[in-house]
Amino acid sequence: MSLDWLSAPCAQPDVARAEAARAHQLQLTKPPGSLGTLEAVAIQLAALQRSPKPAVDRVWISVFAADHGVAEEGVSAFPQVVTGEMVRNFATGGAAISVLARSLDAKLDVVNLGTVNDPGDIPGVRRAIIAPCTANFCKGPAMTEAQLDAALTIGAQSVHDALESEAQLFIGGEMGIANTTAAAALASALLDEPPSSLAGAGTGLNAAGIQHKVSVLERALAQHIMAKTALEQLRCLGGFELAALVGAYIAAAQAGLPVLVDGFISTAAALAAVSIQPDVRPWLLFSHRSREHGHARLLMALNAEPLVDLGLRLGEASGAAAVVPLLRLACALHNGMATFEQAGVSTA
Amino acid sequence: MSLDWLSAPCAQPDVARAEAARAHQLQLTKPPGSLGTLEAVAIQLAALQRSPKPAVDRVWISVFAADHGVAEEGVSAFPQVVTGEMVRNFATGGAAISVLARSLDAKLDVVNLGTVNDPGDIPGVRRAIIAPCTANFCKGPAMTEAQLDAALTIGAQSVHDALESEAQLFIGGEMGIANTTAAAALASALLDEPPSSLAGAGTGLNAAGIQHKVSVLERALAQHIMAKTALEQLRCLGGFELAALVGAYIAAAQAGLPVLVDGFISTAAALAAVSIQPDVRPWLLFSHRSREHGHARLLMALNAEPLVDLGLRLGEASGAAAVVPLLRLACALHNGMATFEQAGVSTA
Repeated sequence: MSLDWLSAPCAQPDVARAEAARAHQLQLTKPPGSLGTLEAVAIQLAALQRSPKPAVDRVWISVFAADHGVAEEGVSAFPQVVTGEMVRNFATGGAAISVLARSLDAKLDVVNLGTVNDPGDIPGVRRAIIAPCTANFCKGPAMTEAQLDAALTIGAQSVHDALESEAQLFIGGEMGIANTTAAAALASALLDEPPSSLAGAGTGLNAAGIQHKVSVLERALAQHIMAKTALEQLRCLGGFELAALVGAYIAAAQAGLPVLVDGFISTAAALAAVSIQPDVRPWLLFSHRSREHGHARLLMALNAEPLVDLGLRLGEASGAAAVVPLLRLACALHNGMATFEQAGVSTA
Repeated sequence: MSLDWLSAPCAQPDVARAEAARAHQLQLTKPPGSLGTLEAVAIQLAALQRSPKPAVDRVWISVFAADHGVAEEGVSAFPQVVTGEMVRNFATGGAAISVLARSLDAKLDVVNLGTVNDPGDIPGVRRAIIAPCTANFCKGPAMTEAQLDAALTIGAQSVHDALESEAQLFIGGEMGIANTTAAAALASALLDEPPSSLAGAGTGLNAAGIQHKVSVLERALAQHIMAKTALEQLRCLGGFELAALVGAYIAAAQAGLPVLVDGFISTAAALAAVSIQPDVRPWLLFSHRSREHGHARLLMALNAEPLVDLGLRLGEASGAAAVVPLLRLACALHNGMATFEQAGVSTA
C-alpha cells in the first residue's frame, strides 16, 4: 500500500497562455468583456490546456457508485437497493447522466466500487468492488487504510483511461444512497463546522429527516474527533465513491487535465482533494450551484464561482454535464470570432 | 397602414399537456424535482409545443439591425459606422452570434432595417431598409407611423419565415449603436420610472458617460410625455430593430411559436410586446440575466426568472443562443430518461 503518488506535484497552468488568450479576447468583434463568463472560461481553458485554441470536444465522464454503511441509520429518502439498480440504469442508458452523455457525445465510464445490491457484471460498467459497502461511520472508520488506498487508486485509474482516450475535460460524478450524509460528514470535519450547516435534504428528506441526519452526523463527528488530516477524515467519514473522486481530481491535476466539478458531493471531494494537495485547485472548474443545502458553503470554502444555478440536486455528474455546452460555446467563440481588423469593424 | 394584426388573439399554451409532462417527470429515475429548472423548462415547452416530446432542434435566430438618430447625442462608446460594419460581420460569420448559430446548427436570419453606413446588398442579409436611421428622439418622434408599421411588419415577417422552415424556437436579437439608450427610453416610459434606474454602460460607457446618457434620456422623456400607449411610446422612443422585435414576439405568440428572449434590449421589446398584448407573455422564455444595469428591473416587471446569469452584455441574441443547449438537454432528459418502472428502480 502506498499513497505516495498523492503528493506528486501537480501540473502548472500556463500563465503566458492565459495572458495571450486575454489579449486575443480584446481583439474580437464585441465590446471588451461583453461575453462575461464565456470569456473567462475560454481564457482559463487556454491556460490549462496550454493551447491558443482551447477545446472540450472530447469529454470523459466517470460516475463512481458505492454503498454506505451509514444508510442503516435511516438517513435517505430512498432504499439502499437503489444504488445497485441505478448502476444498471446508468449502463442501459435510462439515467439522467446516460441521456446527457449521449447528447454530448461524451464517454460515460461507470465504475462500481461496491453495492449491497450487486448488479453483477454489466456491459459498460467497470467492476472494481472494494466491499459491498463502507462501515457505518457512526461506529467506526468508514474504510480501512487498504480500502481507502484502493478507492483513491480506482479514481486515478479512470483519469488514466480518460488521458488514454485523449479526453480534454474530466467530469466525475457519483451515486450512492446516503452519500450526502457522508459528504456532509467529510465537509464538516474538513471545515471544522457543525453538521447543521452542511446537512441537507439529499434525495428528499423532510425537516424531521434532516434533523435526524444532523444528529447522526453529530455522533459520527464525535466518533472520529481524532481524525485530523484530510486523508484520515476521508477514510473515517467518506465513502468509496468520494475517495475515488478525490483520487481522480488529484490525478487529473497531476496530469494537467482540466476538471469540471458537479454538485454537493463532488465538491466535498474537491475540497478534500485541495486539502490534501492545494495545487489541485487551479484545475477545477465549477459547473453549478446545487440546491442541496451546504453546497454554497463548500463553494465558498473553495473560492469557487460556478457557471450556473439551475436548482439541480441530482448528482451523477448531471449538473457538470449540463454545463459542457457552455464551455464548448465559450471555446467556439474564442476560436471562431473575427477580430476587429479581420472584419473591418471600427473600435471604440 | 394597418396595425390591426397586432390585436389578433395569441395561441394558448396547452395546460393539460403541462400537467401530463409534470406527471411524466415524476416517473423518471431521479428524486422528484432534482433536475430543477431543466424539468420546469421541459414542462413549459411541452405545453407551448402541445407535444409529449418537446424539442428545440430547429432554432431560428433573427438579428435585426438598425441605426438611431439619438446616437448624435454621443451616448455610445462605439461610432455609428459600426452598425453597418457588424451587419457584414454577421453575414460573413465573424460575429459572436454567427459563431453561436453555426455551433448550434441554427438558422441565422440577419435583417437590415436601415443603417447610416449602408453595407449594401450582402448575401445572407435580408434588406428591409426603412430609413438610414430613426430620428433623434430628443427632438421628435423616433419613427413616423408608417415607419413603425413597417418595422413591426418586418419583424413579423421573420417569424413567418421561421414558421415556414418549421422552426421549434424563435430567438430575436439586435444590433444598433445607441440602442441601449432607445431601450432604456422605451422602458422608462413603459414603466413610468426615471431613466437612471434603466440606463447602463451599454457597450462600455464610464460613469460620466452614463450620467450624460441619463440626461439625454430625461430630455427625451420630457419631449414625449404625451405618448401614453405602449405603441405610441415605441414609436416615439424606440427604434426600427426594437419595433421589429415587438412585431416578431407578437407574431410568434399568435402563431404559437415559443420565443427565447435575449438581454436588455430584447427584454425591453418583450415588455412593450406584453404591454400591447398581455397574452404574449406565456410564449416568452427568458434566457439570461445581462450585466446591463436595467435588465434586472425589466425581468422583474415581466415576472421573469431567466435560466442563467453569465455576466453577458453583448446583445445580437448571443445570450439566448448560448442557452439553447440547456433547453435541448432539458428536452433530451424529458424524452429520453427511463421511468422507475422501465428501469426496475425502486422508489422512495
